[in-house]
Amino acid sequence: MNDFNLPVRVYYEDTDAGGIVYYVNYLKFMERARTEWLRSLGMNQSNLPVLFVVRNVQVTYRIPAVLDDQLQVQLQVMSYKGASVTFQQQITRENEILCLGSIEVACVDRESLRPCRLPKSLLAHLPQLPIHQSVNTK
Amino acid sequence: MNDFNLPVRVYYEDTDAGGIVYYVNYLKFMERARTEWLRSLGMNQSNLPVLFVVRNVQVTYRIPAVLDDQLQVQLQVMSYKGASVTFQQQITRENEILCLGSIEVACVDRESLRPCRLPKSLLAHLPQLPIHQSVNTK
Amino acid sequence: MNDFNLPVRVYYEDTDAGGIVYYVNYLKFMERARTEWLRSLGMNQSNLPVLFVVRNVQVTYRIPAVLDDQLQVQLQVMSYKGASVTFQQQITRENEILCLGSIEVACVDRESLRPCRLPKSLLAHLPQLPIHQSVNTK
Amino acid sequence: MNDFNLPVRVYYEDTDAGGIVYYVNYLKFMERARTEWLRSLGMNQSNLPVLFVVRNVQVTYRIPAVLDDQLQVQLQVMSYKGASVTFQQQITRENEILCLGSIEVACVDRESLRPCRLPKSLLAHLPQLPIHQSVNTK
Repeated sequence: MNDFNLPVRVYYEDTDAGGIVYYVNYLKFMERARTEWLRSLGMNQSNLPVLFVVRNVQVTYRIPAVLDDQLQVQLQVMSYKGASVTFQQQITRENEILCLGSIEVACVDRESLRPCRLPKSLLAHLPQLPIHQSVNTK
Repeated sequence: MNDFNLPVRVYYEDTDAGGIVYYVNYLKFMERARTEWLRSLGMNQSNLPVLFVVRNVQVTYRIPAVLDDQLQVQLQVMSYKGASVTFQQQITRENEILCLGSIEVACVDRESLRPCRLPKSLLAHLPQLPIHQSVNTK
Repeated sequence: MNDFNLPVRVYYEDTDAGGIVYYVNYLKFMERARTEWLRSLGMNQSNLPVLFVVRNVQVTYRIPAVLDDQLQVQLQVMSYKGASVTFQQQITRENEILCLGSIEVACVDRESLRPCRLPKSLLAHLPQLPIHQSVNTK
Repeated sequence: MNDFNLPVRVYYEDTDAGGIVYYVNYLKFMERARTEWLRSLGMNQSNLPVLFVVRNVQVTYRIPAVLDDQLQVQLQVMSYKGASVTFQQQITRENEILCLGSIEVACVDRESLRPCRLPKSLLAHLPQLPIHQSVNTK
């Protein structure tokens, strides 16, 4: 899984009283990676005419991260349709996979919040898959 | 879906620059409801010999909540096994379902973090389902 | 200190790996109390023509709160000027004061973000103090 | 102010419905800088025999940060005593100072949570000030 990788450090703000990263916060890490992937393609979300909104998340937690861990947050485009993209993401620490996620993001108009087509600037960077067809990435 | 209901108010801390509740925060609301459900059964997590850790989450987002909304966060036990419980949860505003989640929580030993049996105090309150069999709740 | 009191429960989301409430989160609790105080006066921030923005915070931490604690978050209007209000707030657990804060909130126009006069609906509820003069609340 | 500088990017998770960074989150950014400063001196908080706990914060907000901003989070040791250090911190965007903070951090024993002396490994890196005397940094 190597479309993009973002290193993320674990701080106190990310942990909970169980002594581990609060499970909800892995979703923040995954979003940071999607944001930096877009930025690496020349797209700043604050300048886009569209908004990306999360429609569906599925995350499996295997091993907890702890304070001071240096994590790698990876993403791969798994499939896309006219108005949405599904990412497969994983968070690793050295050679261990800590958690795995599948995140479906929809593209909506900034004013009406109605679904709209993915920007051409993004489509140009998506893998050449037949529309509506997903790639088996495992 | 009516095993338990927790009212939750939306504050600035819950929102993001899209003007809506940051999607990650619905998972916090769902956890508050699970915590208060346990408390309503006489269990404070800080006193239990076990920890509950989230193994898997699946959430579908339909309609965004906004600042000052009064939400209802509901849960129903959907299935359970020897060492884990799966909840179906939904967040509603008046008669609208804003998001739906399925959350699998595992029971682990507080010291070893290894899977362990659900406490009897909890089992006594779970619906009388054959172990390993889930209930179709739709 | 008894202008307003909001009960707040401590959840996992509020704690950190030190086993206590993450110190930053007390500021969220204090804001919830200010929001509910405004609501108790008939003002929903999402409907107001103005925004309240925090200009200055000062917080002293005495005793940490922990998971499952039931806290009381109190506020008192300490002073106000034409375009800002300063609150004294404290968070208690039973008879202990856990932390104390002084929070200055400015009123700004929702469009221009420039300072503007406090709404009359709010002024009507502020204690009859000479403008620019503070009350010694200790 | 140049003892240490940490670049921080603003993500959706940091913003609120006002369209700006939620004011509480600047305190997280300031803590990340203190943590990385300690790490730059060879100290990982998860390995230290002591805990650092925040005793007092004072923050003044001047200009709000927004989504996608690239911020610089700076710190300078302002004064220290036997068991605590006070940092002056500021967050800037290009040449603008967005907010300023003074943060007092106390050193406590990890078991008893009682105040204890600053580790020698840290003292060795603090500026050679007479103990109990502060530096005027403005």
